[in-house]
Amino acid sequence: MMTIDPLLHGIALAGVAVNAAAGVLEAGRKPFDLFGMVVVALAAALGGGSLRDVLLDRTVFWIADQAYLAAAVAAGLATFALVRFVRLPGQLFLLPDAMGLALFTVSGTQVALALGVPWLVASLMGVVTGVFGGILRDVLCNEVPLVFSGQLYATASWAGALLLVTLTMMGVSAGWAALAGGSLVLVLRLAAIRFDWRLPVFSARL
Amino acid sequence: MMTIDPLLHGIALAGVAVNAAAGVLEAGRKPFDLFGMVVVALAAALGGGSLRDVLLDRTVFWIADQAYLAAAVAAGLATFALVRFVRLPGQLFLLPDAMGLALFTVSGTQVALALGVPWLVASLMGVVTGVFGGILRDVLCNEVPLVFSGQLYATASWAGALLLVTLTMMGVSAGWAALAGGSLVLVLRLAAIRFDWRLPVFSARL
Amino acid sequence: MMTIDPLLHGIALAGVAVNAAAGVLEAGRKPFDLFGMVVVALAAALGGGSLRDVLLDRTVFWIADQAYLAAAVAAGLATFALVRFVRLPGQLFLLPDAMGLALFTVSGTQVALALGVPWLVASLMGVVTGVFGGILRDVLCNEVPLVFSGQLYATASWAGALLLVTLTMMGVSAGWAALAGGSLVLVLRLAAIRFDWRLPVFSARL
Repeated sequence: MMTIDPLLHGIALAGVAVNAAAGVLEAGRKPFDLFGMVVVALAAALGGGSLRDVLLDRTVFWIADQAYLAAAVAAGLATFALVRFVRLPGQLFLLPDAMGLALFTVSGTQVALALGVPWLVASLMGVVTGVFGGILRDVLCNEVPLVFSGQLYATASWAGALLLVTLTMMGVSAGWAALAGGSLVLVLRLAAIRFDWRLPVFSARL
Repeated sequence: MMTIDPLLHGIALAGVAVNAAAGVLEAGRKPFDLFGMVVVALAAALGGGSLRDVLLDRTVFWIADQAYLAAAVAAGLATFALVRFVRLPGQLFLLPDAMGLALFTVSGTQVALALGVPWLVASLMGVVTGVFGGILRDVLCNEVPLVFSGQLYATASWAGALLLVTLTMMGVSAGWAALAGGSLVLVLRLAAIRFDWRLPVFSARL
Repeated sequence: MMTIDPLLHGIALAGVAVNAAAGVLEAGRKPFDLFGMVVVALAAALGGGSLRDVLLDRTVFWIADQAYLAAAVAAGLATFALVRFVRLPGQLFLLPDAMGLALFTVSGTQVALALGVPWLVASLMGVVTGVFGGILRDVLCNEVPLVFSGQLYATASWAGALLLVTLTMMGVSAGWAALAGGSLVLVLRLAAIRFDWRLPVFSARL
């Protein structure tokens, strides 16, 4: 089996940093102080993986390895400093955010598979890892979670997680399965932004 | 001891499905897409039992047995499809919802008792299992939790849980204690709806 | 080593009670009933320590010892009864609340250190224990968490937690490290209220 652990570790760190930065930009619309901003950044960056680990009864990843915590704090503070001086285009974060979604989906699914949970749960753990940080960020900012509407986001994550699970069950190595699943997430998400793909909006007739 | 596990398992599945349907109906008041609706349905159906299991450091029930997860997703999707074509009376869900509250209260309390936690904690675990899903559903929809006001709901759950704990301590078998506790929840909840029983509303004079 | 466990236990109970009372006063601004009030009180009093214990995979403190649960319920009900008859000055709770913050910070940090987690995580666990209850209280009341803005709060907690960790690493006994860390939290918080110390407010230029 081709080992991808050092690669995955590095990319997961990058995903944590990117999500922390996105959390700061979201919190910036509220009159939060530096601490509130750091908390929202940490929730956005670490929330998904934390929920996965608590549900799976694993040691929470940023407690086992505090490099993740340091990366989230550093990225949050750097973004805080940066946006005080530079006007960033809001679209700038869509690409790294999509990469973060792909990476979190892959790592969440693979962690769950390694623990031997059933396939449906494993794919859902990929989605949880990918999107829960953003949900927590929005709840803390007292807003309706953005991921509940808008262009395909969690759906892209679930599709990639299911592909990864399927390939793994067919005997494909972890490295190739991760590459295929992560690429599918990334391509679907970017295409959804480009072509404005959306799920049907639900409207109860009550 | 009369064994009720297969029965409880079936009824717990029904409770999960009913709560998922109620989550979809709640989410339908917001402009959520299909994914947002499924997340709210899962949170409503699995949130209470998940919090109980995480607090008690048990394997989360829907990870151990993915039939619960499948039931929640299926019920959520079926409700989503149904309400696009049929106008359902809003009152229709009050009876199965009350049954779900009774069943979740019983299973939450019995799980906690089986782990040997103190009686006050065990009864509270019944309430948590019964009502936390609804609280989570409302927080995700950015609304004040409905269960914090209105007709008796958690109070009915707590009364039944305390009865179950008391009977179990008196040596009554698990089956009869469950029947008595669950029935009390159901009767109290239905009577509260029928006769508009409410707790005193708190209003701080600050 | 000077043993401070009985002392810490007593002060932690007091901290739980004070935070439950503060939760009731916050919930009183909403049209919640008695149950809603009790839930918000429990969330405020037990939320921080529960999150710490779940993340560290310890037995949740109020499940291991239901004296905490009883103290939170009793303090919540007493406050509920009291404010129906007496008009309390809103400022009255700032001193015990600051003491609660100091005590929760100390106990959270020491529990984490005893489990051997890295120093940055240990100090963050002190902050989590000190402030998460208040965040949960505000989310349940559908408000932006107060701790995200206003006078120094979490910052005071973090400073004290870092002092405690530093002293412990330097070989200072647990009792003196707790006293120094807790005192720093208390002094910083009270000075922040008195002199209106605040962190810079973040405002994204997007």
